[in-house]
Amino acid sequence: MKKNNIITPSILSGFMELLPSDQLLFDKMMNTIRNSYELFGFTPIDTPVIEKAEVLLAKVGGETEKQLYRFARGKNELALRFDLTVPLARYVSQHYSDLTFPFRRYHIGKVHRGERAQKGRFREFYQCDIDIIGNGTLGLYNDAEIPSVIYFTFKSLGFENFKIRINNRKILNGFFESLDSQVTTTEILRTVDKIDKIGDIAVGNELVALGLSKNDAEKILNFLKIKGDNNAIIDALKTLPINSNLFKEGVSELSEVVKNIKSLGVPEVNFIIDLAIARGLDYYTGTVYETILTDYPGIGSVCSGGRYDNLSDSYTSNKLPGVGISIGLTRLFYQLKEAGVIKSDRLSLTDVLVVPMDKNDLHFSFEIATSLRLGGIVTEVYAENEKFSKKLSYANKKGISYVAIIGENERLSKKVTLKDMISGEQRSISPEEILVKIKKRIS
Amino acid sequence: MKKNNIITPSILSGFMELLPSDQLLFDKMMNTIRNSYELFGFTPIDTPVIEKAEVLLAKVGGETEKQLYRFARGKNELALRFDLTVPLARYVSQHYSDLTFPFRRYHIGKVHRGERAQKGRFREFYQCDIDIIGNGTLGLYNDAEIPSVIYFTFKSLGFENFKIRINNRKILNGFFESLDSQVTTTEILRTVDKIDKIGDIAVGNELVALGLSKNDAEKILNFLKIKGDNNAIIDALKTLPINSNLFKEGVSELSEVVKNIKSLGVPEVNFIIDLAIARGLDYYTGTVYETILTDYPGIGSVCSGGRYDNLSDSYTSNKLPGVGISIGLTRLFYQLKEAGVIKSDRLSLTDVLVVPMDKNDLHFSFEIATSLRLGGIVTEVYAENEKFSKKLSYANKKGISYVAIIGENERLSKKVTLKDMISGEQRSISPEEILVKIKKRIS
Repeated sequence: MKKNNIITPSILSGFMELLPSDQLLFDKMMNTIRNSYELFGFTPIDTPVIEKAEVLLAKVGGETEKQLYRFARGKNELALRFDLTVPLARYVSQHYSDLTFPFRRYHIGKVHRGERAQKGRFREFYQCDIDIIGNGTLGLYNDAEIPSVIYFTFKSLGFENFKIRINNRKILNGFFESLDSQVTTTEILRTVDKIDKIGDIAVGNELVALGLSKNDAEKILNFLKIKGDNNAIIDALKTLPINSNLFKEGVSELSEVVKNIKSLGVPEVNFIIDLAIARGLDYYTGTVYETILTDYPGIGSVCSGGRYDNLSDSYTSNKLPGVGISIGLTRLFYQLKEAGVIKSDRLSLTDVLVVPMDKNDLHFSFEIATSLRLGGIVTEVYAENEKFSKKLSYANKKGISYVAIIGENERLSKKVTLKDMISGEQRSISPEEILVKIKKRIS
Repeated sequence: MKKNNIITPSILSGFMELLPSDQLLFDKMMNTIRNSYELFGFTPIDTPVIEKAEVLLAKVGGETEKQLYRFARGKNELALRFDLTVPLARYVSQHYSDLTFPFRRYHIGKVHRGERAQKGRFREFYQCDIDIIGNGTLGLYNDAEIPSVIYFTFKSLGFENFKIRINNRKILNGFFESLDSQVTTTEILRTVDKIDKIGDIAVGNELVALGLSKNDAEKILNFLKIKGDNNAIIDALKTLPINSNLFKEGVSELSEVVKNIKSLGVPEVNFIIDLAIARGLDYYTGTVYETILTDYPGIGSVCSGGRYDNLSDSYTSNKLPGVGISIGLTRLFYQLKEAGVIKSDRLSLTDVLVVPMDKNDLHFSFEIATSLRLGGIVTEVYAENEKFSKKLSYANKKGISYVAIIGENERLSKKVTLKDMISGEQRSISPEEILVKIKKRIS
């Protein structure tokens, strides 16, 4: 232990650390998300932050592989998980015979990516994921449940103006395959995915640069421009003269999913088909989702995901199709704070501060504190050797609404002087009355 | 991405991963601990899993330093936190001017130690910590609040038979200093701390081996044998002819702390002075705590901590005394499971499984599911293309109490056939009635 050298206390860049009031707000959001996920029958799992490197490497590629935190320990190559999907794939394969399918799990946990540091990007962040994993097959109705969870979650978080955008990769893949072109669907999809960021002219140019004919590029742009309400889009898709079974399957699936989302009570104003949504990741094979806060489109998608044919081909020969979504909570919280959408509203959890005037009052103060706590009221005792004004100032700094003052009079009369820190009002009150009064105020 | 090679899905040894039913039990314990901590006015903080290595190294020593997971990334030396106390010391120093003191925080999070793998020891585990940090000074009354939190927490976890053992390091240090010996107090303390494990004869021999006279070793053993209820021990200490101010200060502190613990409503059966408790860590300077489940003494201390004069001398010149405790939840959970003290009692969170008989029943099933969820009832829909018996078996495997069956009759009558999976009883019921019935059952 160094004793005399003082090390500057600091954390690594790209890591989020919050002061208590912001932490309370962050935790409240996380709890809201957790409660929503649980209401739909998802159960929690928790996987190690550190996995065997070979397990993660089986599923990682491209940029993410470079961002992996890897290190050796003895004979072992270790790595920190970079998302919660790969650990899920490993978990479901490993515990296959102990799970009930369809397996509905949620997972809220920290993941790590050594990205280049930049404003609003984090190297350690919370993901909040749900997935439904089938054994061999998984009914299409599940694809409608996911937007229902998104809807319920964002409503519970206090949002009114958000849109869940839905598409189906089979529609895009089928359409692109029907074109007279050598360019792979993956390449086209990657380009199309940028349409929100770079606009349709730039996308058109990139498509031509890829090797598509101008005619095909225009066909694609026109296709992406099909707009209207959900019924209008479905109708338009059904009448398009595209000769691809995959395309037809996609349209049929999308049509059914949209119908079911309505049955689940999601208002039409909160979900819309958007044919431009592809989701870059290779493994999506059917329905895909993004979610936009309509008042803050700059934040980008706050909740994304989709359907995949096979989750775990790296770890098992069992076919495990699934559908799921992820909320990147750390980034979402940061963006909402920056945009002024959310504000810390509590400085602490404490309802009542019990303040003895004197050492002799400590015994009765502790009794009062215990009875309040047993009644479910968050209570602190402040008996530091300070002036009375300093004690009240502690209550103010922590945003505590009530101070229970205990002096000689109170001790002898077995009553408490309760000061309302908001109105300034002060009254003598019995311990039983405090419980009733404050419980009413809290609820 | 590898496609054809299948990697065996497994995790590193020494890491805990639970199946859903155990995870529900684990999470329930964690929530109970969190709720107890919050009731006493502790607010949450969350610090990065990865810290700058130099920050952790300033505070680490001995075995723990060898166990540190360290690695380089670019120019940076990184390390995974090995406890929540060092990050707290760093946090309080770094955010000093933004915090209100005494700063009461709780922190529940994963920490990592590359220990030698052995049964019941984990390399990744949850700690659940509370600490109260003063700015310059911190009133002794806080030392009594901590056992009150321990008492409330273990009662809330469902335990009746546990004992919080309390001591004060000043008593030990003062007593040892008063001996006619060159052996350092630290060396004696380390030996004394082993008394539960190796017994008093072995401790006596070790003390002599350290260089103490047989007479002094015997004095120490006799001192440690002072037994009785708390008052008897305090009285015995007060009459001991030990010429040390530190000793007297310790006795006076312990006496006051014990009195205050009583005022806070902790029954005498649940806390006892134990003069043998030293807590190995160098930084404790006053009150120390251990907690034993009296029916399972082999588990060892399930909640330990104490008072320290200065938390953050590695990071700041501000003097920050504190008092706190930690519960090692992962180990505790493992030990309680092994001993059969706790058992998973839920296979899922789901209250109702809605089962449509047919594709045509999906719309009404979704409507029912949504209305149940809006009423706060955890609901799943099972519409996989399976036989009816398979659907009921899904409910059984997940321990779901009610199945709401939706067929043509139900769809037309706008009623639901509700099957009680425990009694087997089945009745036709309106959606509104289900809500009332099930809410009653749940609460």
